[in-house]
Amino acid sequence: MRVVVPYDGHDPKSRLAGRLDESERRAFSRAMLRDVLDAVERAGHDPTVLATEAVSVSNADVVVDDRPLTAAVNGVLDGFEWSDAADDGEVAVVMADLALATPDAIRRLADAEGDVVVAPGRGGGTNALVVRHPSFRVDYHGASYRDHRRIAEEVGASVGVVDSMRLATDVDEPSDLAEVLLHGRGESRRWLVDAGFELAVSEGRVGVTRES
Amino acid sequence: MRVVVPYDGHDPKSRLAGRLDESERRAFSRAMLRDVLDAVERAGHDPTVLATEAVSVSNADVVVDDRPLTAAVNGVLDGFEWSDAADDGEVAVVMADLALATPDAIRRLADAEGDVVVAPGRGGGTNALVVRHPSFRVDYHGASYRDHRRIAEEVGASVGVVDSMRLATDVDEPSDLAEVLLHGRGESRRWLVDAGFELAVSEGRVGVTRES
Repeated sequence: MRVVVPYDGHDPKSRLAGRLDESERRAFSRAMLRDVLDAVERAGHDPTVLATEAVSVSNADVVVDDRPLTAAVNGVLDGFEWSDAADDGEVAVVMADLALATPDAIRRLADAEGDVVVAPGRGGGTNALVVRHPSFRVDYHGASYRDHRRIAEEVGASVGVVDSMRLATDVDEPSDLAEVLLHGRGESRRWLVDAGFELAVSEGRVGVTRES
Repeated sequence: MRVVVPYDGHDPKSRLAGRLDESERRAFSRAMLRDVLDAVERAGHDPTVLATEAVSVSNADVVVDDRPLTAAVNGVLDGFEWSDAADDGEVAVVMADLALATPDAIRRLADAEGDVVVAPGRGGGTNALVVRHPSFRVDYHGASYRDHRRIAEEVGASVGVVDSMRLATDVDEPSDLAEVLLHGRGESRRWLVDAGFELAVSEGRVGVTRES
């Protein structure tokens, strides 16, 4: 299975701007990318970073494509050799901000049945995807979970869904940082702890505070 | 396995008050309860509702205990016959607002290894739990996921964690309604649709709107 991890290095994680300054957001997004690459690698795959600009990572090849996400991923699908034995006719697309990803969660994604496998994100996104059908193309705009199901149906591809809290948790907003502190096991969590973040427990759900 | 579903009939789902009036919140919380009971039953278990007041449900026994959640659940654990062959020495506690619960998700909970199995909720809660250790007791106050791990450690109980988006999604806030519309398969989703709710897709995550 080929595994592609799209990474947009331009103004990363802008919705965290209230909590992290720009250089911090860049460092934190890199830590999350490394956690995702590490989970993919430990699940037995060699990830490729599909980046909008040159980025240096130690454990993955990098391909630069400065087009928007949908066009860049469809470029990968267009150029994929579906009958190539080396990749088993499978392309996975795993978002770079899945800071809770573990090798087990990646294995469940890879093992799920379906011509197209979707791991939905909270709020209707598509956090991870496996494509095993040559006619399927992505559309990440809007509520992509529903759109990807519809596109699969249109091309006659069966759909599998992976029920994973770890893959459903893309880290976009301050409340997502609590999930990283609670369930993270890698660099992203260490980065937040080193930056002074800790859980703030109230009567309802937990949030985060930061030492000043 | 004995399966207990706590249900608080007093002012249910108060954080949805901006979107649903009191009688609607009561009806919607009942629909979610029925979906949870249905998933448990179809997974092969006979659920018991642990209710704060008398409640009529067609497919489950009801036990009334008007104490707060933690005391009521610990009352069940105190009175449980751990060597009783009928229940295999296992008590599960499944929250009544897991509107996305499916038989598969309940089976994954029941099949997970550990003296204590936790399905964490978003924000550090404990949405579902299996207890197989006579000394373990619950504490739902605050960030109960971490507390339950600590309590398990204190009594020498091993801990398993279920990685399920469906079990992680307790429905408390308006944004959670989008998850029900996207992924629900039962009464809760139908109730929302009948009440005029639909997905509102914007550039970021999806929300819900309601026909007026």
